Amino acid sequence: MRVLGIDPGLTRCGIGVVEVDAARRASLVAVSVARSDKKLATHFRLRDISIAIEQALARYQPEIVAIERVFAQDNLQSVTTTMQVMGAAMTAVGRAGLPLAVHTPSEVKAAISGSGTASKAQVQHMVARILGLKEAPRPADAADALAIAICQAWRGTGLLGAEGEGTVQVSLSGGVSAKKTLTPAQQQWAQAMAASRRKGAVDPQRVR
Amino acid sequence: MRVLGIDPGLTRCGIGVVEVDAARRASLVAVSVARSDKKLATHFRLRDISIAIEQALARYQPEIVAIERVFAQDNLQSVTTTMQVMGAAMTAVGRAGLPLAVHTPSEVKAAISGSGTASKAQVQHMVARILGLKEAPRPADAADALAIAICQAWRGTGLLGAEGEGTVQVSLSGGVSAKKTLTPAQQQWAQAMAASRRKGAVDPQRVR
Repeated sequence: MRVLGIDPGLTRCGIGVVEVDAARRASLVAVSVARSDKKLATHFRLRDISIAIEQALARYQPEIVAIERVFAQDNLQSVTTTMQVMGAAMTAVGRAGLPLAVHTPSEVKAAISGSGTASKAQVQHMVARILGLKEAPRPADAADALAIAICQAWRGTGLLGAEGEGTVQVSLSGGVSAKKTLTPAQQQWAQAMAASRRKGAVDPQRVR
Repeated sequence: MRVLGIDPGLTRCGIGVVEVDAARRASLVAVSVARSDKKLATHFRLRDISIAIEQALARYQPEIVAIERVFAQDNLQSVTTTMQVMGAAMTAVGRAGLPLAVHTPSEVKAAISGSGTASKAQVQHMVARILGLKEAPRPADAADALAIAICQAWRGTGLLGAEGEGTVQVSLSGGVSAKKTLTPAQQQWAQAMAASRRKGAVDPQRVR
């Protein structure tokens, strides 16, 4: 199975492609970082990132795409921009007619390193080991995109479904309500969300 | 001058086109509401909204596009989705090579009705009067898109520029810092943002 992972960002957007065989061995297909010129207005920067994603989808023909969920702690400007990049990326995947899965950073860390609180360096080290590389691809956005793709290949969950189906609703007031019974992993996630929100984090929606 | 206004939304996205002559008289060119099927996964819904915007840009050939800034009070799921729609819409405008302006709801209300706190009904009433229509277009998203287009035609501000140029930075911790001297309107806006944030609202970035 071939998976394309996206680490969304306006200045640097990581795009990584991995292939996983029946024995769950992962190998590197391609990795790159799309960049946009800071001197351009935001909508032209989104255009450039969007074109890079479309080109990667056309070139590497993945069966599924995975993207990292925006999860910013304290910078509203950056989370807004990243959500807009996420919208541009999701649109590109939709236009390619491919299924899309979304994973939180802690899901990616847990899948790659066994711990949802692993350091960035630890995740990058594991990405290199998993893919049999001498060292982790640079910059970090490239390694992160590969980590997201590996996470998707191994976990196989997180697929975006129809709205309202299994949706976990999160309100700013701190309540977490589920329309459907949650899996243990979903419950863990909801609890982690609630905990980080109490610490003042901003966290986006969770759609399954 | 021909302006295309967008009221971003995943379920209903208003698209309105107006033309304004040298005497600032505005007339209706076209108005519609793009819809997406709630049964689809979000990225396919974003695709459908994106295609509708691209088609409107190609058909009506506006010289400039204006979009309403997301400004949600208490529903994080909805603000995330709307920001993703904004990202998809901005990408479509970027791909068309057009300039893009962004206005807050209160800027639109003030331009249309003279009051930044006008009711929705009042704005819709004024949209109909300004365009010489017997009644406001329905649904409300259609009238809102026209209001955004008229606001842009009359104010002529709000153009997205290069990042960092005149950017108002807002942090969740409540600080508002400006890299450049703000106009009185920008100062008012920054104060309103700070006030609403203290009340627990979520508000996106402001880029000029």
